[in-house]
Amino acid sequence: MAKFRPLSRGVAVVGAGMSKFGAFPGKSTRDLFVEAFLEMRDSVDKGFNPAEVDALYIGNFSSDLFEGQGHTAPIMAEWVGLAPKPAVRVEDACASSGVALRQGILAIASGVADIVLVGGIEKMTDLPTAEVTDTLATASDMLYEIPAGFTFPGFYASMATSYMHKFGATPESFMKVGIKNHENGALNDKAQFGKTIRQVMDDKIAKSEARGLPIPVWENEIAFLQDARANPIIAWPMRLFDCSPISDGAAALLLVSEDLANKFSEDPLYILGTGQASDVALHERENLTGLRAAREAARQAYLMSGVTPADIQVAEVHDCFTIAEVIAIEDLGFFPEGEGYRAAETGVTGRTGEKPINTSGGLKSKGHPVGASGAGQVIEIWKQMRGLAGDRQVAGELEFGLTHNVGGTGGTCTVHIFGRR
Amino acid sequence: MAKFRPLSRGVAVVGAGMSKFGAFPGKSTRDLFVEAFLEMRDSVDKGFNPAEVDALYIGNFSSDLFEGQGHTAPIMAEWVGLAPKPAVRVEDACASSGVALRQGILAIASGVADIVLVGGIEKMTDLPTAEVTDTLATASDMLYEIPAGFTFPGFYASMATSYMHKFGATPESFMKVGIKNHENGALNDKAQFGKTIRQVMDDKIAKSEARGLPIPVWENEIAFLQDARANPIIAWPMRLFDCSPISDGAAALLLVSEDLANKFSEDPLYILGTGQASDVALHERENLTGLRAAREAARQAYLMSGVTPADIQVAEVHDCFTIAEVIAIEDLGFFPEGEGYRAAETGVTGRTGEKPINTSGGLKSKGHPVGASGAGQVIEIWKQMRGLAGDRQVAGELEFGLTHNVGGTGGTCTVHIFGRR
Repeated sequence: MAKFRPLSRGVAVVGAGMSKFGAFPGKSTRDLFVEAFLEMRDSVDKGFNPAEVDALYIGNFSSDLFEGQGHTAPIMAEWVGLAPKPAVRVEDACASSGVALRQGILAIASGVADIVLVGGIEKMTDLPTAEVTDTLATASDMLYEIPAGFTFPGFYASMATSYMHKFGATPESFMKVGIKNHENGALNDKAQFGKTIRQVMDDKIAKSEARGLPIPVWENEIAFLQDARANPIIAWPMRLFDCSPISDGAAALLLVSEDLANKFSEDPLYILGTGQASDVALHERENLTGLRAAREAARQAYLMSGVTPADIQVAEVHDCFTIAEVIAIEDLGFFPEGEGYRAAETGVTGRTGEKPINTSGGLKSKGHPVGASGAGQVIEIWKQMRGLAGDRQVAGELEFGLTHNVGGTGGTCTVHIFGRR
Repeated sequence: MAKFRPLSRGVAVVGAGMSKFGAFPGKSTRDLFVEAFLEMRDSVDKGFNPAEVDALYIGNFSSDLFEGQGHTAPIMAEWVGLAPKPAVRVEDACASSGVALRQGILAIASGVADIVLVGGIEKMTDLPTAEVTDTLATASDMLYEIPAGFTFPGFYASMATSYMHKFGATPESFMKVGIKNHENGALNDKAQFGKTIRQVMDDKIAKSEARGLPIPVWENEIAFLQDARANPIIAWPMRLFDCSPISDGAAALLLVSEDLANKFSEDPLYILGTGQASDVALHERENLTGLRAAREAARQAYLMSGVTPADIQVAEVHDCFTIAEVIAIEDLGFFPEGEGYRAAETGVTGRTGEKPINTSGGLKSKGHPVGASGAGQVIEIWKQMRGLAGDRQVAGELEFGLTHNVGGTGGTCTVHIFGRR
């Protein structure tokens, strides 16, 4: 376990914006990042001048393989007018922008920067699906795991079968996570999928009707999701609707030192805790139903913030697959080990439940442009805590929020805790 | 220009090690990094326990394209026994490990880490040369520059022709930089090329003689380098011996907070200054004979350290091409603009000159495993300042050293200044 140490000085989020997540054949990474940057700029209560920014930290998994572009940080800096300010690309697979956020925080705490732009970008939809899967697989271990035939749905399926074996969950337990997150995403105009599973089901029925085909009858959403024609198996027990999509998107956050927070914002969102950890490759782990890196990152963030799992009122967790959300809410201490799978069923993680999880729709419904996902999570916490989440707003005064961003199969995890002062 | 701010707390280098640089078909990135780590470990005067390391920052340009491996940071952490400590990959093209060094410094200054391992890795020789060139080209602008046919020798050739036009340098001016750096590299057992240009020339003569072929006669090394059969043109005026090679290699540095420096080291090398800057893509710049990012990074590092260009006694600069060294020593303020090209000729940048540059052999002769080069530079400064550089040791007590690491065509630059207290 890493020792706990406080930051040399505090840091606050004073601006947050994102592009729509989805498939945008006509847009490059640059376009998406500029879109996110402009929304972020407009979100700063008291305004800011881009010339004041001291550094850029950009999270990106693999523009190298997705777009044939490396060295993306100075390009992104240039496109939002920041050159010659230092620009750093951070890569930790799907946790790239969670880690970029952390590096932005450390840069301010270090004293060398007062105002930092943190971004996340990924443009995945230019490649055929099989090549996207191959590219994502480079986030696992190419020496031992890829040659054995593993791809990410397979990795998470192995976690799911282990979880089912140990704790008695069923494939339907995971489906309920997807149903919940699609319900949330349907209320988020930035989400890639704007429909609930019920709407998807009703659309299929309407389409059959319109075409004069036999009208399928599903008793309910679970029956729909159990039907392999509607919801094909990808890697059992993970079906299509258990997997987050291939997405394009960008997100941007403005961080400032605590002493400047009120200069920029009416209501700064302070970073109360930051945690990051790594782990060995999946094939070497004894336990597949929890991520050591997530537990360790959470431990650091709780310790730094003095906040407990029970204090967290809204959290965005890394649901790249439905099983991942179940494991995440246990790793974060929200639910005891082996009980997280019941949460979506009982409604406790729903928008009106005691512990709302992934009110944005999560990666599952909002979309998963991998390098942008970690920064994107912060935007939901920003919106929820400021009362800007519209129809998906969680009720009551929100004091504490959390983000949990995973890279690969848990080789990297970051946890951040946000709150007021 | 970025404002100047001091670090919240000081940082020292207490260990430094590297693999040999070269072409190692039987070794993976992991092997090379472990090799560098073990040498680093043995260089720590008072020893250290890897379990004490709080975080890993690893510079790597494109293991994605070179090896089909992303998410390299946790893998490197695992292979040197650091999991579950946070592991961050930093990518800024050929400046990746210069930037990783800077992030390691900031992590310590921020208060969250006391002991940080900084690494640099690249394994380039598994791909055919044309694919290596294509991969390196992803560090430029794939939207505007690559489609125009530019590759890196072409970029630097355009800087060289502009420099020649403005200041009266000749191709021979650049050749003298290569001759100097090969002389240094021949004294470095970690260098990819262990021969002086004269030795290369004599070897060719001997080979012809042995084979009973007509014996070539070259008056001197310059005549040899002017001969297109011996030294083919790559992108005029850059010839083969003006270009750094394709290399495999790794480097590792141990950083600690100033208060711990004497616990680990008899003679800590303090970070007196760190600077980093970015720039717009080359095709948009008005001036090709200087890098704005280098000048800005140098300005920051000089300001933080209180050290002047005249104070620097030994420097490793980014000579990916011979023209790059000429531009670097001007950008760093060692020589006035337009006069840097005379330095290698007059001997002032030689090992026994007033301003020894690239005593390691530089990227030109030591090798240029791109993501490892920035950290590799620090190892030479470490050796020189500790009097461990053997036959290439610069005479006298060395107080101040500098490293200068460039990404792409100057989209990124970092400058670090090292000294005692």
